[in-house]
Amino acid sequence: MHVQEQSGPGDTRFFVSAGPFDAAELARCAGAELRGSDAALDGAARFSGIAPLQSAGAGQVSFLDNRRYLPLLEKTGAGAVIVAPAFVDKVPAHAIALVSKTPYLAWARVASRFYPAPPVDPGIHPTAIVGDGAVVDPSAAIGAFSVIGARVRIGAGVCIGTHVTVGDGVEIGARSRIGSHVCLSHALLGERVTLLPGVRIGQEGFGFAVGPDGFETVPQLGRVILEDGVEVGANSTIDRGSIRDTLIGAGSRLDNLVQIGHNARLGRCCIVVSQAGISGSTELGDFVTVAAQAGLIGHIKIGDKARIGAQCGVMSDVEAGADVIGSPAMPFREFFRNVAFLRRLAKKPAQDRGREKDD
Amino acid sequence: MHVQEQSGPGDTRFFVSAGPFDAAELARCAGAELRGSDAALDGAARFSGIAPLQSAGAGQVSFLDNRRYLPLLEKTGAGAVIVAPAFVDKVPAHAIALVSKTPYLAWARVASRFYPAPPVDPGIHPTAIVGDGAVVDPSAAIGAFSVIGARVRIGAGVCIGTHVTVGDGVEIGARSRIGSHVCLSHALLGERVTLLPGVRIGQEGFGFAVGPDGFETVPQLGRVILEDGVEVGANSTIDRGSIRDTLIGAGSRLDNLVQIGHNARLGRCCIVVSQAGISGSTELGDFVTVAAQAGLIGHIKIGDKARIGAQCGVMSDVEAGADVIGSPAMPFREFFRNVAFLRRLAKKPAQDRGREKDD
Amino acid sequence: MHVQEQSGPGDTRFFVSAGPFDAAELARCAGAELRGSDAALDGAARFSGIAPLQSAGAGQVSFLDNRRYLPLLEKTGAGAVIVAPAFVDKVPAHAIALVSKTPYLAWARVASRFYPAPPVDPGIHPTAIVGDGAVVDPSAAIGAFSVIGARVRIGAGVCIGTHVTVGDGVEIGARSRIGSHVCLSHALLGERVTLLPGVRIGQEGFGFAVGPDGFETVPQLGRVILEDGVEVGANSTIDRGSIRDTLIGAGSRLDNLVQIGHNARLGRCCIVVSQAGISGSTELGDFVTVAAQAGLIGHIKIGDKARIGAQCGVMSDVEAGADVIGSPAMPFREFFRNVAFLRRLAKKPAQDRGREKDD
Repeated sequence: MHVQEQSGPGDTRFFVSAGPFDAAELARCAGAELRGSDAALDGAARFSGIAPLQSAGAGQVSFLDNRRYLPLLEKTGAGAVIVAPAFVDKVPAHAIALVSKTPYLAWARVASRFYPAPPVDPGIHPTAIVGDGAVVDPSAAIGAFSVIGARVRIGAGVCIGTHVTVGDGVEIGARSRIGSHVCLSHALLGERVTLLPGVRIGQEGFGFAVGPDGFETVPQLGRVILEDGVEVGANSTIDRGSIRDTLIGAGSRLDNLVQIGHNARLGRCCIVVSQAGISGSTELGDFVTVAAQAGLIGHIKIGDKARIGAQCGVMSDVEAGADVIGSPAMPFREFFRNVAFLRRLAKKPAQDRGREKDD
Repeated sequence: MHVQEQSGPGDTRFFVSAGPFDAAELARCAGAELRGSDAALDGAARFSGIAPLQSAGAGQVSFLDNRRYLPLLEKTGAGAVIVAPAFVDKVPAHAIALVSKTPYLAWARVASRFYPAPPVDPGIHPTAIVGDGAVVDPSAAIGAFSVIGARVRIGAGVCIGTHVTVGDGVEIGARSRIGSHVCLSHALLGERVTLLPGVRIGQEGFGFAVGPDGFETVPQLGRVILEDGVEVGANSTIDRGSIRDTLIGAGSRLDNLVQIGHNARLGRCCIVVSQAGISGSTELGDFVTVAAQAGLIGHIKIGDKARIGAQCGVMSDVEAGADVIGSPAMPFREFFRNVAFLRRLAKKPAQDRGREKDD
Repeated sequence: MHVQEQSGPGDTRFFVSAGPFDAAELARCAGAELRGSDAALDGAARFSGIAPLQSAGAGQVSFLDNRRYLPLLEKTGAGAVIVAPAFVDKVPAHAIALVSKTPYLAWARVASRFYPAPPVDPGIHPTAIVGDGAVVDPSAAIGAFSVIGARVRIGAGVCIGTHVTVGDGVEIGARSRIGSHVCLSHALLGERVTLLPGVRIGQEGFGFAVGPDGFETVPQLGRVILEDGVEVGANSTIDRGSIRDTLIGAGSRLDNLVQIGHNARLGRCCIVVSQAGISGSTELGDFVTVAAQAGLIGHIKIGDKARIGAQCGVMSDVEAGADVIGSPAMPFREFFRNVAFLRRLAKKPAQDRGREKDD
């Protein structure tokens, strides 16, 4: 079997397109202003899909979000391009500009117009097992070989994939999507929660005391609460609380392979990027960003809108709005000053470095 | 569906309480001394559960382990509190003090008295598949859609969850608990081993040689041995040995998303915290702690009771009892001295920093 | 159940040996030269298996690859040892030397001769579900409870484990091996692709725009392409592209718990070690090595044969052939020079350090 890359996104083996749409419809859904030559704006233009700048054709929409790709804009064959006002002059004459102050958001909406989330096909697969007293909304879907525990409540339009295990008593709010191989226990989920494949929610956290004959387990008696709109990436793990709840605030997004310890609390609209870890009982405010591979020790507080850099090691509280990086964490400016200092040092001739050694 | 947090642990949708108990019974199981006013010690007091200091009521037991939460102790409404001798005077007059030199251990035991591990409901789920020659103790439980290979041996009281795959020839000791979606092969497990959901044990390690046409796989012919009482967190991975065994010593506890490479050996009662990684053929003594996100290269030795700090990068042997941190690893004291030096430096005025550049 | 370690690899509960072989056959398959005393080379010697130096007996083959284990070579009881030319004199007189300039490669081939990959037992397990229009080669095997989507194509000799989910339209090339609990969607796999248990391929990447009411998802419309011979370790995650494809080049090997972001591209024969992460849209050339726990930010380029050290944090392009380490990444030499400088500093007496503070 030969694997060949194709020019654009939306391979029809995997995606179903809702188009075509005309420029006015795209501008409307994008909240964008239409700009271009009379010829380009001729109402007859219809768009069947989307594509990156370098491969888009006359029937496709593209976008520029990152200045780094500006050279591609000038040469694009796209029939329409979403751009920020600053770049509208760089759009080729043959193309329509869809001008937006938030081009990436406009792009999200145009792409979603062409490729809306697939509809849920209601029903419980005949191989799925549903426990006693479970209430499954008739508009929900449950995939093959999934196991739904006793007294579980599953809301309207929920879609549960294949090989999912939902423990007794769990509640899943309307329009949530639970990916394949998810394991979910001791948890309450709001509406529109998305769990990607392999997520583990609600297992016991890492809690034990040192006893005379080794470690003794501390029962983990809290829950996991995922508020409305929370999304969790593939193979991430969220432990249930030990004595209070582990809580992820509304709209927060966690990437793949993220670890959230017991009793941790994230505010609203936090971002936790891949392979980052938040230890037990640590609390994040709203709109906190934790970049990839960062680690936060337990029992600390991170203020609203703080940004924790990639690979950062946070050992103490971080103020609201602060930007920190490094291990241990320090302000961005300090970190890069230290880096520059050490870099200068490394360039000194060897004899100077020898003197230092002896002074 | 609206998700609401409740005041205490032990949500009856998820947990079954064994109480109530009187103070004497709690003191006995905690190995604690009873202290308090005559009124408080009046034998009539009975306790129905546990709760954190800030929300506990008269019928609940709480505890203080971390000095940081001392202000909460003085205001608690708990009927009984487990504390260290140093804090007994801070327990409010209305409450009984359960005084222990090891309050967290006492707490573990009291909490376990209220919430013992749920009993195993013996039997093989009708959808489970059990291979030829497998021996499953009649007191063991095997969950829905699990697949048990040929010649597997499963001991008394073992509980295997849903969607588990156990490869041919694996042995699982008495009272072990295997979580949902675990995949287990080429492995021998002792008694009371706990694997949380999504653990991968015994897959081939990362072994290959460079050949003329790319990498060539080196067969991985060892096993994984988990001794008695080992616990492994969600989605962690332990590769089987290549030419000898990968071995985790009795009582050791691994957190979520931990990686253990082929041929690695951990001694007894080691702790490996979330997202840490131990590379192939590295050996840990007994009672070693590896904190979160630390990484150890291959073929090194870590002495008994050494402590490896969070995000530490260990590139060479570590002596018994040593505390190291940083990447590359260095003694704790040296690390924090370096940090302080660089911090001071960063605060120097710009002209001083300019001089340095030219000297 | 008592767990006991045995002396050598190849426990017959888990592995089937193809031997015995004589020395000439081993030399032939290893591409090695036979050396030794007349007695040792006597054609009657036959070998039944392999073992490490310290436990091998007269009927077993061993090898020396790492100079660190030289003392074990001189005392080994092995009947034959694979060694580099430099160490042939250290092989005991009773043993045959199998001399190779690439002893680890020779070992890979000898070990594979004794323990070839188990043959695939063709057939679809009666509990597996195969979707409409799927084409499964009659020589392929599909395990219990696996779910194969509509229009999936599965090539000759493919082996799919238990509890696997393959999404609609996926293609899997000949002789690929898909481990248990793998979830695979929006993907095209070449031939001889190996996915270890728990791998997640093709889920939506971490893509969203900031809207007025929180984050809005950007549809992820690309695919994942794994070229011939790619191997992916347990519980690793590879997100599908957003607007182009995520691509892993032929022969590349990823270890456990690795994260690959959307639109990332790896060239041929790249190595990505455990817990490393490559962010979205980053591109690696051919033969790039990314060591354990390293992290690469998005939208950068790494040249051919570059080597990224363990825990390295790469924030900008890396030239072909460069060796970098540290966070942020710097050349190996510079990194270790900085480390040495700080180490020297930490050893200065306190009064000197005081002077620095005041100068």
